[in-house]
Amino acid sequence: MNDTPTQQAVVSALSAIVGETHVLTRPEETRPYCVEWRDLYFGVPAAVVRPASPDEVAGILRFANETGVPIVPQGGNTGLVGAQVPDESGREVVLTLERLKAIRDVDREGATLVAEAGVVLEEIQKAASEAGLFFPLSLGAQGSCRIGGNIATNAGGTGVLAYGNTRDLVLGLEVVMADGTIWNGLRRLRKDNTGYDLKQLFIGSEGTLGVITAASLRLFPAPKGRAVAFLAVEDPETALTLFRRFSQTAGSALTGFELMPRLGIDFVLRHQEGTRDPLEAPYPWYCLVEISSGRSEAEASELMETTLEAAFEAEEVLDGAPAASLAQAAEFWHIRHTMSEVQKKEGGSIKHDVSVPVAKIPEFLKRASAAVIEAVPGARPLPFGHLGDGNIHYNVSQPVGADREEFLARWDEVNTIVHGIVGELSGSISAEHGIGRLKRKLLAEVKSGIELDLMRRIKTAFDPNGILNPGRML
Amino acid sequence: MNDTPTQQAVVSALSAIVGETHVLTRPEETRPYCVEWRDLYFGVPAAVVRPASPDEVAGILRFANETGVPIVPQGGNTGLVGAQVPDESGREVVLTLERLKAIRDVDREGATLVAEAGVVLEEIQKAASEAGLFFPLSLGAQGSCRIGGNIATNAGGTGVLAYGNTRDLVLGLEVVMADGTIWNGLRRLRKDNTGYDLKQLFIGSEGTLGVITAASLRLFPAPKGRAVAFLAVEDPETALTLFRRFSQTAGSALTGFELMPRLGIDFVLRHQEGTRDPLEAPYPWYCLVEISSGRSEAEASELMETTLEAAFEAEEVLDGAPAASLAQAAEFWHIRHTMSEVQKKEGGSIKHDVSVPVAKIPEFLKRASAAVIEAVPGARPLPFGHLGDGNIHYNVSQPVGADREEFLARWDEVNTIVHGIVGELSGSISAEHGIGRLKRKLLAEVKSGIELDLMRRIKTAFDPNGILNPGRML
Repeated sequence: MNDTPTQQAVVSALSAIVGETHVLTRPEETRPYCVEWRDLYFGVPAAVVRPASPDEVAGILRFANETGVPIVPQGGNTGLVGAQVPDESGREVVLTLERLKAIRDVDREGATLVAEAGVVLEEIQKAASEAGLFFPLSLGAQGSCRIGGNIATNAGGTGVLAYGNTRDLVLGLEVVMADGTIWNGLRRLRKDNTGYDLKQLFIGSEGTLGVITAASLRLFPAPKGRAVAFLAVEDPETALTLFRRFSQTAGSALTGFELMPRLGIDFVLRHQEGTRDPLEAPYPWYCLVEISSGRSEAEASELMETTLEAAFEAEEVLDGAPAASLAQAAEFWHIRHTMSEVQKKEGGSIKHDVSVPVAKIPEFLKRASAAVIEAVPGARPLPFGHLGDGNIHYNVSQPVGADREEFLARWDEVNTIVHGIVGELSGSISAEHGIGRLKRKLLAEVKSGIELDLMRRIKTAFDPNGILNPGRML
Repeated sequence: MNDTPTQQAVVSALSAIVGETHVLTRPEETRPYCVEWRDLYFGVPAAVVRPASPDEVAGILRFANETGVPIVPQGGNTGLVGAQVPDESGREVVLTLERLKAIRDVDREGATLVAEAGVVLEEIQKAASEAGLFFPLSLGAQGSCRIGGNIATNAGGTGVLAYGNTRDLVLGLEVVMADGTIWNGLRRLRKDNTGYDLKQLFIGSEGTLGVITAASLRLFPAPKGRAVAFLAVEDPETALTLFRRFSQTAGSALTGFELMPRLGIDFVLRHQEGTRDPLEAPYPWYCLVEISSGRSEAEASELMETTLEAAFEAEEVLDGAPAASLAQAAEFWHIRHTMSEVQKKEGGSIKHDVSVPVAKIPEFLKRASAAVIEAVPGARPLPFGHLGDGNIHYNVSQPVGADREEFLARWDEVNTIVHGIVGELSGSISAEHGIGRLKRKLLAEVKSGIELDLMRRIKTAFDPNGILNPGRML
């Protein structure tokens, strides 16, 4: 490997590959690629490069691999752990996939779709829907996140309960390796036992093993009917009982079960224009429940009604609003989807994205909140998320009137408290957001030596010069 | 690495680890571990070793890794590609997991089960059922195959349509690495994005990357009702139309859709005692359809009836027998499950385990059978299997009265014909059985150079001395 090239040499080499209009260096141009939306990370790149094809990506990686230029792959820049933002060194090149935006194929018969990495998630949902099918990945950022990033982070979201994580929706990948070789693994088969399942390594690898340029995705029959209800419950124990009831009666027709505390509703009502409380009085906890039917609207509604009736009779539900229309269902989901954003308006928020075995959620919430409030009196825990997957976004807003920076300075301390309890309950410190830069140090604490060693061996085997997203995850 | 030790040295080292009664060398003792049931492979081992714990497995691998003794991990010895049988060198040690047979834990609340590698699949099904839950992996060999082998081969079976392959049922693994290090990755979480998903590498790796000693598995709510029907159709096109109809109306409640030709029924009736034709007259093709309901027997039956009614009206079904009882449903499934075994009684059978995109199945069957019969006049194609997954066991029985050996001598030639068509349809030459020794040469033909290269890099990173199942898969 030669000496690291100067910024000028990098820009000129990249320009030769993608054309100079697609190599950005001026701060006002590169800024959107270098800040992430929660303002936790801000970096300075050598350049932002915008290739338009897998071949151009290959050319960039070949150059980087030969010269040792670090590459930071980026999708929609909506990641939550700083994996997609350059560091402060001025050496890293951000490789955005935003121009690889073709949906190459929709196969209605085979229920598959091949999309390039830069396609926005919402566009994939739309394309599936136009073919009379359904792509179930759904999350708050779906209007701006890109499928390549979703795959590189194994995104979760609200559809996991019935359809699995992003990992479960990917049938094949096209990946550019560190040395610029293109692996065409765009298979579309449900079953293929020919060798190691390589695509699994790239899914969730946060750009550290290769650059995903396209994917073939599984589509599903579109639900013919949906029923959504917004339900008030006394506490997480009851929410869990209610979840079990719905699982039992609806089975795989239960497509959503989200838990939210009153504080989250308060924040949304206070900061998100046009929202209103679905229920007449305030309650301590809420569940957002969705049932889908492959057959009819009526079946979904009936299933919701009979289950709700039984839940009311068993006094599990304090009050409830079944959505009377599609618009109202969308309103309910909107409350859930904006619960992350609105926290910004209440000052500092210390965040956790954890999972525990589903049955342990009430214990986790009780213990975590007691411990956090003991350490930071006045702190306001706002735990919400995917109860059915055991995945809680355990966020903590600062005490009212406290100093933002002072509160945020206790980030690691609060993390240690919460993650300690997660560990005792055999949970995960990153259920769906990944590791990136935010949790890199934590990884060494929660993984065994052998597991870290195996990960490093794979990293070395795939990216011997260490040019792919260095310092992220590993 | 020292010189390869003598057989005596191997036996004495292994005896020191597991006790000498668990190191087998006499041919009458080792034979059951060295022949596979279709008589395609027969090997001569240095010894068969029977460890009773992960620690003993670790001790064996440590010794093997230091001395270069090749290890052949074995579960229930039901594999179909020769991966689990020693070669003829007399150097290989068969490591059977049969004594690791504890079900360590059944968590009813969390719907997970932790089983050691040697637990027979049927016992896991039973343990799940006793806990009021359901483990969906189901295949002909379930009375003797062991879960470690199922995972190492990513077994498919008849439940894939609704529940996925074995890969989709595994939440975590315990694996002994080539150097004897034990990786405890027995997680039980639905969501965990902390680093590369290492378990995926071991699933389907056929014992070449590590020895699986235990697994945590996903359980599901037990279906409360099942409806099974045995249906006659004119041709595979109609079977596909029928499959689509059932998919549409039943959605994820469609838990089985198998295709069988008349010849298969003839074979079963001829060679399997106590079976009878479910229908009164013979028909060219059959579909075995299963619908499950999470709610009731009645719901499953009603869904079956209404869908069947519509299918009869559309003239997709020539005749049909809905199972009138659980016993009759079991009879129908028995016909399907014995279809593999009975082929032995009709002389030589050249086998393929292929998948193509579901919509291409009719084209594949038409082209493959025409080409095979042209090459081997009188040959009797018997394609059957999992239509809903695109996975067909395309077996070809010898012409009536032909010489068995002469017919089997054309194995490669017939493979080339069938796999050629599979390739043109973007299919897989091994949908669920794996590669092993049987398809090792074929692998190089169907994989790109970069994919083989990536596989080799992983193999070298995990098993640098090449002691784990050498000559299998790679």
